[in-house]
Amino acid sequence: MLVAEAHAGLCKLALNRDNADTMNFASDNAVGASPKVMSAIAAANAGAAMAYGNDPWTARVERQMRELFEKDVAVWLLATGTAANALALASVTDPWGAVLTHEESHISDDECGAPEFFTDGAKIVGLSGHGGKLAPEAVAERLARMPHGNVKQVQPQCLSISQATESGLVYTPAEVAALSAVIRPRGLALHMDGARFANAVVALGCSPAEITWKAGVDVLSFGGTKNGAWAAEAVVFFDPERGREMPWRRKRAGHTVSKARFVAAQFEALLTGGHWLDLARTANDHASRLAAGLGAVPGIRLGWTCEANEVFAIMPKGLAAALRAAGAVFYDWTDRALGEGNRPAPHESIHRFVCSFATAAADIDELLAKVWALQGRAA
Amino acid sequence: MLVAEAHAGLCKLALNRDNADTMNFASDNAVGASPKVMSAIAAANAGAAMAYGNDPWTARVERQMRELFEKDVAVWLLATGTAANALALASVTDPWGAVLTHEESHISDDECGAPEFFTDGAKIVGLSGHGGKLAPEAVAERLARMPHGNVKQVQPQCLSISQATESGLVYTPAEVAALSAVIRPRGLALHMDGARFANAVVALGCSPAEITWKAGVDVLSFGGTKNGAWAAEAVVFFDPERGREMPWRRKRAGHTVSKARFVAAQFEALLTGGHWLDLARTANDHASRLAAGLGAVPGIRLGWTCEANEVFAIMPKGLAAALRAAGAVFYDWTDRALGEGNRPAPHESIHRFVCSFATAAADIDELLAKVWALQGRAA
Amino acid sequence: MLVAEAHAGLCKLALNRDNADTMNFASDNAVGASPKVMSAIAAANAGAAMAYGNDPWTARVERQMRELFEKDVAVWLLATGTAANALALASVTDPWGAVLTHEESHISDDECGAPEFFTDGAKIVGLSGHGGKLAPEAVAERLARMPHGNVKQVQPQCLSISQATESGLVYTPAEVAALSAVIRPRGLALHMDGARFANAVVALGCSPAEITWKAGVDVLSFGGTKNGAWAAEAVVFFDPERGREMPWRRKRAGHTVSKARFVAAQFEALLTGGHWLDLARTANDHASRLAAGLGAVPGIRLGWTCEANEVFAIMPKGLAAALRAAGAVFYDWTDRALGEGNRPAPHESIHRFVCSFATAAADIDELLAKVWALQGRAA
Amino acid sequence: MLVAEAHAGLCKLALNRDNADTMNFASDNAVGASPKVMSAIAAANAGAAMAYGNDPWTARVERQMRELFEKDVAVWLLATGTAANALALASVTDPWGAVLTHEESHISDDECGAPEFFTDGAKIVGLSGHGGKLAPEAVAERLARMPHGNVKQVQPQCLSISQATESGLVYTPAEVAALSAVIRPRGLALHMDGARFANAVVALGCSPAEITWKAGVDVLSFGGTKNGAWAAEAVVFFDPERGREMPWRRKRAGHTVSKARFVAAQFEALLTGGHWLDLARTANDHASRLAAGLGAVPGIRLGWTCEANEVFAIMPKGLAAALRAAGAVFYDWTDRALGEGNRPAPHESIHRFVCSFATAAADIDELLAKVWALQGRAA
Repeated sequence: MLVAEAHAGLCKLALNRDNADTMNFASDNAVGASPKVMSAIAAANAGAAMAYGNDPWTARVERQMRELFEKDVAVWLLATGTAANALALASVTDPWGAVLTHEESHISDDECGAPEFFTDGAKIVGLSGHGGKLAPEAVAERLARMPHGNVKQVQPQCLSISQATESGLVYTPAEVAALSAVIRPRGLALHMDGARFANAVVALGCSPAEITWKAGVDVLSFGGTKNGAWAAEAVVFFDPERGREMPWRRKRAGHTVSKARFVAAQFEALLTGGHWLDLARTANDHASRLAAGLGAVPGIRLGWTCEANEVFAIMPKGLAAALRAAGAVFYDWTDRALGEGNRPAPHESIHRFVCSFATAAADIDELLAKVWALQGRAA
Repeated sequence: MLVAEAHAGLCKLALNRDNADTMNFASDNAVGASPKVMSAIAAANAGAAMAYGNDPWTARVERQMRELFEKDVAVWLLATGTAANALALASVTDPWGAVLTHEESHISDDECGAPEFFTDGAKIVGLSGHGGKLAPEAVAERLARMPHGNVKQVQPQCLSISQATESGLVYTPAEVAALSAVIRPRGLALHMDGARFANAVVALGCSPAEITWKAGVDVLSFGGTKNGAWAAEAVVFFDPERGREMPWRRKRAGHTVSKARFVAAQFEALLTGGHWLDLARTANDHASRLAAGLGAVPGIRLGWTCEANEVFAIMPKGLAAALRAAGAVFYDWTDRALGEGNRPAPHESIHRFVCSFATAAADIDELLAKVWALQGRAA
Repeated sequence: MLVAEAHAGLCKLALNRDNADTMNFASDNAVGASPKVMSAIAAANAGAAMAYGNDPWTARVERQMRELFEKDVAVWLLATGTAANALALASVTDPWGAVLTHEESHISDDECGAPEFFTDGAKIVGLSGHGGKLAPEAVAERLARMPHGNVKQVQPQCLSISQATESGLVYTPAEVAALSAVIRPRGLALHMDGARFANAVVALGCSPAEITWKAGVDVLSFGGTKNGAWAAEAVVFFDPERGREMPWRRKRAGHTVSKARFVAAQFEALLTGGHWLDLARTANDHASRLAAGLGAVPGIRLGWTCEANEVFAIMPKGLAAALRAAGAVFYDWTDRALGEGNRPAPHESIHRFVCSFATAAADIDELLAKVWALQGRAA
Repeated sequence: MLVAEAHAGLCKLALNRDNADTMNFASDNAVGASPKVMSAIAAANAGAAMAYGNDPWTARVERQMRELFEKDVAVWLLATGTAANALALASVTDPWGAVLTHEESHISDDECGAPEFFTDGAKIVGLSGHGGKLAPEAVAERLARMPHGNVKQVQPQCLSISQATESGLVYTPAEVAALSAVIRPRGLALHMDGARFANAVVALGCSPAEITWKAGVDVLSFGGTKNGAWAAEAVVFFDPERGREMPWRRKRAGHTVSKARFVAAQFEALLTGGHWLDLARTANDHASRLAAGLGAVPGIRLGWTCEANEVFAIMPKGLAAALRAAGAVFYDWTDRALGEGNRPAPHESIHRFVCSFATAAADIDELLAKVWALQGRAA
C-alpha cells in the first residue's frame, strides 16, 4: 500500500508503508528506539508516580543535565522537537520580536509556523549562508538594517542556529562564540536547535558545555528522538531564570505530558554511561563511510562535507531514480545552500541520506553496491 | 524527598516521590501502561517506518476507529489530552467565538488557557450545573443572553461536555441528545471531552456510536492515557470535513509526533479485542466497591454517586489528615458542584479517590481498613 | 431607512438612521464633538507635523496629563476605548494570566474578545456584584480559588474595574483602595476602565490623582470620546515603566494613528481650562434631573441610583414600547446586576437612558412629558 | 525642541517639532486634511447618530464605493492603514498561511508585525523585485518551493502588492493581471495595499475597477489618509462574502470607531466630485516637477522613475546633509530595491521626497534653488 505523498521541506517521497526496512536513509526519525531506551521505558512502567514531572525519573534527569553541562540549568522535558524549539524561542522573544535564523532552518521552513504560533506572532527572519551555517557578517549586516527602537519594525531578540545544520555541517565553539559576539551588544539571545546535538558533539569532540553556554548559547533544544529515543526532547536554559515562564507556556501548549516519567526515562537511559554519544558515534561513523563511498563513485559528488550523520550527494537524476526503483529510500533536497560553483547541473539532482544508530553496515554496503552497479552501467 | 507542591485544580498534595506505590488514589494518570500496551510499544520498535503518521500502525488505528464508531471518521492521534481538547475546540471555534462548558470542566479550569491559546483567543464561558453536568435549560438560558450576530459579543460556536465529568458522573445518550437539540438551531458544534470516555462507555453499557455521533456529538477527545496507555489520545471528527485543518493545526502546535507509530501502537493495543473496555471495567468496578465501602462508614458520605471510576467522599477533616498520615494518596476537591444541601459542614472536607486499571483490590482493602480503624477511634 | 439591528450588550434597538436627533438617550457616543473640540481639530489642520505622535500637540498633552495627575505618567493616545482597554490589559497580563472583572463589564461583555486578542489569550474572569461594582470580598474569594503557582490554571494578574460602572455607579477612593489592598499581596495590577472617567470625577468631586494612583490604580483607560471628543482615548500608566512595551503593542495593533496631532488636539481641548469636567458636569446634571423626573412617575422606579450620567429605569413594558413609538431612543438593559429584591416584575423591563454634554434640557422635558402622558393613560 | 529619533523603515530623521512647515517632504502623512475634508468633518458634527457605523454617512459611502468600483462590494471603514492591511490579510489568510509580498513592502517592514498579529501568526514571505514591484516569475518560483499540502510548511494563501510601491512605482492593469494568473491555480487571494491608491489611479489614467477586480484583485486597502483625509481608510472586498468575518475581526481589534460618521464623512468628501483624484493629481504633478528638477542637477540621479508622488534621489552625501541644514525635511532611504547598476557610490546616498496635495510650488522652488546653490558650490 502506497502512502500519500510525505513531504519533508521542499522534497517529497513516496514509500511503500509495508516495506521500509532496508536501505532506508530517509531520516533518523524513521527508526525506533535503542534497546537500552526501550528497556528503560519498560522498566519505568512499574508502580505509581505523580504526574506532570513530579516523579523521581524527571528529578534524576535534571541532575544528570546539570552534571553534563557542568552548570546549574533549568531543564524542561518534551515529546517533540518542534515544541522544544517553539517554546525555547517564545521564552526569549516578544510577539513584536524577530528571530534571525538561516533561511533553510527547521524553525523557518519545516515547522508550519510553530515559532510564530508559540511567540504569538514574532517574525522569523531568514538569512542565507553556505551549508545552513550563518556567518557573523551576515548577522551583523541584517542587524544593521533593523535599528534598535524603531517602532515600525519588529525588534531582533534572538538568533537561532542549528547544530548540526540542515546541510549536515557543524559549528565549532569558536564559530558560535563569534556569532555570540555579534549579537551581545544588541541584547539578542542565542538559541541552538540541537535536534542533532549529539551528532555535533561527537563530531566536535568537545564537551557539551564548550559548544553551548561557554560559547554563548543561552538556550538549547536538546534532541533525543533522532538519537535513539522515541519521543524525548529537552529545552535547557543555561540561565535558569530565563525559563521561569516555561511551566505555563508548556502547559497551555498541551506539552506537559501526564505520565512524564516515560519521557524522563528515555533521557535517563540516553545520558547514562554516555549512551547518547555512543549512538551518535555509530550514526556519524556510518555516514562517514557512506560519504566516502559515494564520493568515490564517478559522476557523484558531495554537496557539503559530511561532518555529522547526513550525506548529501549530487548525482545524475537517472541514477537517483534507479536507486529508488531498487528499494533505496532517501529524500530529494534543495540546492539553495550550495555555493554557486557547486550547483547540480541540469541532468543532476541532490539527495539526502541520513544514517542513524540503527543503520546497518549492510544497508550501506547494499546501497554502494547498487550505485556502482548502476553507475557502471550508466557510464 | 518531598516534591514541591503539586496542584490539581484547586487542590494540592504533597507526596513522597520515592513511595507512591500503595493506596495511591491520586489520579488515573499516576499509573503506568497496561502490560498489553507496553508489549505493543516494544513490538513497534522493530525496523524502520515513515515518520509523522505515515506508518502502518496509524493506518490500522484509523481503520479500527471507523469500525468502532460504525462510521467514516477523521482521526488524529496525539500525546496529551490537553492537546486533543484544544485542537478539537480550535477546529470548531473562531477566535471571536465562545465555547460554553461547565465552570469546573478541564478545559475551563485545568489547562492553563490552552483552549484560548489554540483558538487564538476564543472565550471559554463557564456554566454551573450539578456534578459537572450541564442541563439543557442552563445552556439555553446562556445562549439567549448571547444574541446571534451581536458584534459586541463573542459568538457561541461550541458546547463542550465532559464524559465522564469532573465529578465522576456520566451523561446518558438521551441527555447528550437533549443538549444537542438546544444548540442545533444556533449552529454550535458539540464537543465531548472523553478523557475518561472508556469509563463512561462501560458505565453506560452502550456503543461508542450511541453516546457520540448518534446523540449529536461532532468531535470527541478520545482518551487513552488515563485508561492504560502511557501517552495516547485522539481527536475524532464524526464529519471528517471538520478536521480538514488538523494537519496544520497539529503540526504548528508541535503535536505531530515524529515516531508516530508508538502512539498508534498504544491505541491499536487498546482497541484490539476490547482491551480498552476491559481496563475501564476494572477501574469502574474498583471504584464502585470503594464507593460502597466508604459510604458505609459512619460520618462519611459521597459527594456524588459513583458512576465511573472516581469516588468523592465528604468526611471529617481530621479523618482525611489521618488517612494521609497513614500513607493514602488522594486529592482535596472543590464542593462547588455539589447541591446546596450536600455541602461539607465546617468540620468536613471533600476528597477525590480515583481508581484505575492498575488499582489493586488490596489497596482498597487497606484504605477501608484504615478508615474503619481511624473513624472508629474518632467516634 | 431602517438600519439593521444594532446590538449593545444584550440589548437591541432599531433606529431610523435619518432621524436620530431628538430624545436620543441611546448612548453618549451618539453625539458629535463639543464645539471647542471641533475648533481644536480644525486649528490643528494648519501646516506640517511629523507623524505618529512626534508632534507638538502630543507633547503638550503629555505635559497636561502629568499636571492633571500630579505625577510623572506615561501616556499613549488612541482613537478607541476598546483599544485603550485591551492595550492596557495586555501591558499587565501574560497570555497565561487572568483578569478579574465584573461579569457585565465592557471588557468582558462588549468588546468581542478584544482583551483576549491583545493579551494573546488571557482569561477574563467575570465576578458578580451589585450595580457593576466589585466588592473586596468577592475578589478575595475568587483569588483564593486560584492558588499562586498552580500550573494547571491561568494566573490572576490584573483586576479591572469600571469607573463609572456599566450600571452608572461610581467607586469612591476608599472603595478603590480597599480593592487594591486585596490584590497587592498577590501582585495583581489594578486597571480602571475610565470610558466615563470624567463623569465619575465630577460625581466624586475629588482630584484625578485621588481616584487613581493614590487609591492604588496602576493603569487607566482615560476616555475622551463619550465626553465630547470624537475619537480620543488615552492609556495612562502611573508607573511609566509599565508602559515600556506600548510603542510596539500599539503599532502592531494598527493603533498608531499617523496624523496623531488630531487626536492630541482633541485631548488638549478637553484638558484646557477644565473643559472636560464642564462637559461631564453638564451630562451628570442632565442625568440627575432625568432620574429625579422618572423616579417620580408612578409605576417607574430606578434600577440603581443615578450617580453619573446614566439612568436605569424599570417600567411597564407597554410604556417603554409607547415611548419608543413616540420617538424616544434608549436601550433595553439587563437586570442581572440588580439586587434580588429589585428585579423587574414580569410585566416590567429595565432600560438605559444616557445623557451627554449635548443633551438638551428640551429632550428631557419632552421625554418626561411623554412619560407622564403615557403613564397617566396607562394608569 | 528636538524630538527623539523618528524612524521610517530603515531610515531615521531628526526634526525640530516646532518648525516642520517648509520644504517638508518627509511624508504625505505629515500634512493635515484638505479643506473640503475638514469641512465635511465639521458638518458631520451636528446632531445625534447611531454609533459603530449605523449612521447615514457610512451608508452613503458604501453606496459611493459601489458606484466607484462598478460592482457590489463590501466596505469596512477604518482609521489607520495598518489596520486596513492587517484586517484585509487576516480575512484571506489562515494562521498557518503565508502571504507573499515584496521584501520592502509596508506589511513586511513597517507595521511592526501587525499582519502576524491579526492573522494569529501567518508568515509574511518577502520576495525581491526592482522598485518594490513583484514579477510573475519571482512569485511563481517561490510558489514552486512551497508545495501544496506540505504539512511541514505554511501554505501560501495570499499575494500582497503595493500600489503605488514603496519605491513610488505603479503596476499597470496588465501587470496585476499577470500576477493574478500566476496565483489563481494555487488559490491565493490577491491583496492590493493602496495606501497611495489615488496616486496610482491618477498615474494610470484608468478606472478604479480596471486596476482592481477587473485585473484580479480580491481585496483592496483603500487609503484616504495620505491623500487628504486625516484618518480614513477602507477595506474593500470585491467578493462581499470574503468580508463576512470583518464585523468581529474589526471589533475585537478595537477598530470599530464609535462615532464612525466622522470617518465616513471624510471618505464622502473625498469621493464626491472626484475630489480624491484632484488631490492625488496635485501631489503627482508636484512630484513630477520635483523629479525633473532634481534629475537635471549634475551629480544627482533618480533611483526610480517618478510615477506617482514620490521622488527618490541619489546624491552626494554632503549635499543631503547641507540640504537638511538648510531646513529641508526628507528621509534617508534604502537602496536594496535598486538594480545592481544603479546603486549609490560610496560618496552617495539615496533619499525620499514625498509630495502631497498640500505641497506648495514654493516648497519645490525653494528646494531646487537650494540644491543648485549647494551643488554649484560643491562642483
